[in-house]
Amino acid sequence: MAPRVAVIGAGPCGLAQLHAFEEARAQGADVGEIVCFERQRDWGGLWNYTWRTGLDEYGDPVHGSMYRYLWSNGPKECLEFADYTFDEHFGKAIPSFPPREVLYDYIVGRAKKNNVRQFIQFNTAVRGVSHDEEAGRFTVTVQTRDDHRTRSETFDHVIVASGHFSTPNLPAFEGFARFPGRIMHSHDFRDAQEFSGRDLLVIGSSYSAEDIALQAKKYGAASVTISYRTKPMGFGWPDGIEEVPLLSKMDGKVAYFADGTSRAVDAIVLCTGYQHSLGFIADDLRLRTDNVLYPDNLYKGIFWVGNPNLMYLGMQDQYYTFTMFDGQAWYARDYVLGRISLPSREEMVADIARWRRRLDACAGAFDEIDFQADYLADLYEAVDYPAYDLDLTRAHFKTWEHHKEEGITTYRDRSFSSPCTGTSAPVHHTRWWEALDDSMSAFLDMRPGV
Amino acid sequence: MAPRVAVIGAGPCGLAQLHAFEEARAQGADVGEIVCFERQRDWGGLWNYTWRTGLDEYGDPVHGSMYRYLWSNGPKECLEFADYTFDEHFGKAIPSFPPREVLYDYIVGRAKKNNVRQFIQFNTAVRGVSHDEEAGRFTVTVQTRDDHRTRSETFDHVIVASGHFSTPNLPAFEGFARFPGRIMHSHDFRDAQEFSGRDLLVIGSSYSAEDIALQAKKYGAASVTISYRTKPMGFGWPDGIEEVPLLSKMDGKVAYFADGTSRAVDAIVLCTGYQHSLGFIADDLRLRTDNVLYPDNLYKGIFWVGNPNLMYLGMQDQYYTFTMFDGQAWYARDYVLGRISLPSREEMVADIARWRRRLDACAGAFDEIDFQADYLADLYEAVDYPAYDLDLTRAHFKTWEHHKEEGITTYRDRSFSSPCTGTSAPVHHTRWWEALDDSMSAFLDMRPGV
Repeated sequence: MAPRVAVIGAGPCGLAQLHAFEEARAQGADVGEIVCFERQRDWGGLWNYTWRTGLDEYGDPVHGSMYRYLWSNGPKECLEFADYTFDEHFGKAIPSFPPREVLYDYIVGRAKKNNVRQFIQFNTAVRGVSHDEEAGRFTVTVQTRDDHRTRSETFDHVIVASGHFSTPNLPAFEGFARFPGRIMHSHDFRDAQEFSGRDLLVIGSSYSAEDIALQAKKYGAASVTISYRTKPMGFGWPDGIEEVPLLSKMDGKVAYFADGTSRAVDAIVLCTGYQHSLGFIADDLRLRTDNVLYPDNLYKGIFWVGNPNLMYLGMQDQYYTFTMFDGQAWYARDYVLGRISLPSREEMVADIARWRRRLDACAGAFDEIDFQADYLADLYEAVDYPAYDLDLTRAHFKTWEHHKEEGITTYRDRSFSSPCTGTSAPVHHTRWWEALDDSMSAFLDMRPGV
Repeated sequence: MAPRVAVIGAGPCGLAQLHAFEEARAQGADVGEIVCFERQRDWGGLWNYTWRTGLDEYGDPVHGSMYRYLWSNGPKECLEFADYTFDEHFGKAIPSFPPREVLYDYIVGRAKKNNVRQFIQFNTAVRGVSHDEEAGRFTVTVQTRDDHRTRSETFDHVIVASGHFSTPNLPAFEGFARFPGRIMHSHDFRDAQEFSGRDLLVIGSSYSAEDIALQAKKYGAASVTISYRTKPMGFGWPDGIEEVPLLSKMDGKVAYFADGTSRAVDAIVLCTGYQHSLGFIADDLRLRTDNVLYPDNLYKGIFWVGNPNLMYLGMQDQYYTFTMFDGQAWYARDYVLGRISLPSREEMVADIARWRRRLDACAGAFDEIDFQADYLADLYEAVDYPAYDLDLTRAHFKTWEHHKEEGITTYRDRSFSSPCTGTSAPVHHTRWWEALDDSMSAFLDMRPGV
């Protein structure tokens, strides 16, 4: 009997999985029954912008961490679907760093082309995943949110594609309870204009801190102070942005830092990362990990070693995104379809340990880029994902790192070439630092200066 | 065998329930085993202030809707525990409208006196409540949040005291997705100084809208516009606060209202109420109701008619609070202890219907006050809750309504007399509209002008 497969989430990972199955089906495979449960009203996962923060209209945590004016912070050429290029989707070459709406359009473009929407049950939250040893099947408990009705279904395979950038990690600092202004996690950040004319404190030193600090300044903040725990990002910040050591405490509006300096601020954004929060999965099946390039207990970064019929997509820290998800989705599909067989548990554990030893030996971003590129190559080797120039994307990522060092407000003005089509991206009509309109129509309008 | 009872939540309702059982135990009753599960790290429910918004440190929705500078909006004399008076707790007479910290101290004061903390498992979230017909018992599934471990226990009775002012009701309006500023529900409001110098739009016409609008102005907002759906609150607002009809749409910063007027605003607070969100309770046991004075399906406002071993506390809309919870807790306790027996299901349904018919006939606040006072009297009649002058509290509520009409910024400067001790509350040393310090120490300092 063909297997019954649950896919949890219809964001980039879940859509990649549905697409992978459809590709096999189109080539004649019996892929069984695929059911995708999506909590949101629409697909796209994090790329599906909402103005809501905190809890959504049904009292569930808002999934989205997306904010307005977000532009890709890496070259689009490094995340280009090998079987659905940017050229194909947009019918023309477009610049390398698109805003959210453009990437959203691209992701769902492939999903529409393959008509995978038919497999998705929207507004349906997964409340439980457990495994019945006797039956050898998973029980997935879902709640339809319109009527709050709960039901359970059984599956042979469960593929968890629910993401790990939705549940904030929120440390406390002394004095927060008496701070006379807004304190929020970057998860709840939506529109930088909220801080126009205000003095903002940003805590963190990764992508969110970098981007939100720049945005806040770009859209009119009086000043932005970035507080780091370990070391500063060290970019050449524009006037009005400064990095300082970790916050020691707040006293009213005044922030005191580890170096003894202080300054008054009006609002605080905690860019302190996310938790892998998978509470709906039974204790013995639940991935517990920090945000690392190779989580423990996942063979090939996918298969839960305790029960490989449970798979996780995209749970890694990410240089590569959509193309990594594709590699994982193809690999997971081929396991489900019996095209790939897994080794013994001991061999899986040993393989994971090898990858994790190599990860421990990584010294800096370039090593990490190579690490993840090699991981992708390892996945691709076993599946029929279309070939593309993976080595070019390694090089692109390293060039991009240099560009960021050269100018944190200018790196998004650079252009890269496609690893799929060879197309060189045109230069965007407006420098990112001056581009206030992030709409798709403004971005795709190629007339210079418009 | 003495029953095993689960109490869900250690806020005012849960603490009242634990206290009620302890009172019986002190008088020699065998009250069985009481286990209280509390998701937060500490007791006090909504009165337990947190600076956090959205999700808490474990990725669960933040329970608290409490904000800084909240002062009781009703006379404390109308919520005074009959068995633990304000005079007893504070050792002196205090003014009638205390700030949050004072009421928190009072609530937990009784709980400390009776040492009910021993029954509470903190940081323990209830994830499921279901009923096993065969065993005739409830299964309660809980997750300890530190280690995310899940376990199930069985109980003879479950008392749901988890509150209904935690899950925002958040309607959408046209243009929200492009509003260049903060949009939040009152659930996420924390410190009015966030809006100093800003033009604020408040949507709603109940207690939250009234109080947040006043606060925002009190702490420096440039202007506050209150938008109502049905009718304005109609109080004599101070300069800089104005009521307008319902928001039609936002266009950038500009709010357009149903009367055709418009104005630019910097931030929006939705005071649009809360949902009874009890998703952890099985479909067939879950109370579904709007915020009304007499929800359907709850006999005596407590017992789930489908299975009266499941009880709900405090699920009503509330004029009366702590004293209503006490009445319910005493009644629920006496049912559990076999001191009260319930009538047939048909009689319960008919009794609910009678109350709800009377509720339908209520015309305005005074009728509603009498309705809820009569409900309290009905509960008290069956239990040994100490007598107090309930009729005085009816009168107080009506006087309070008049005071609000007379002056929305001055009603909290009034004084009332205790229905328990007869004590007349002293006048507070500072008029509420001028009192910026809401600490307990400032409030209890009786020296005039200090």
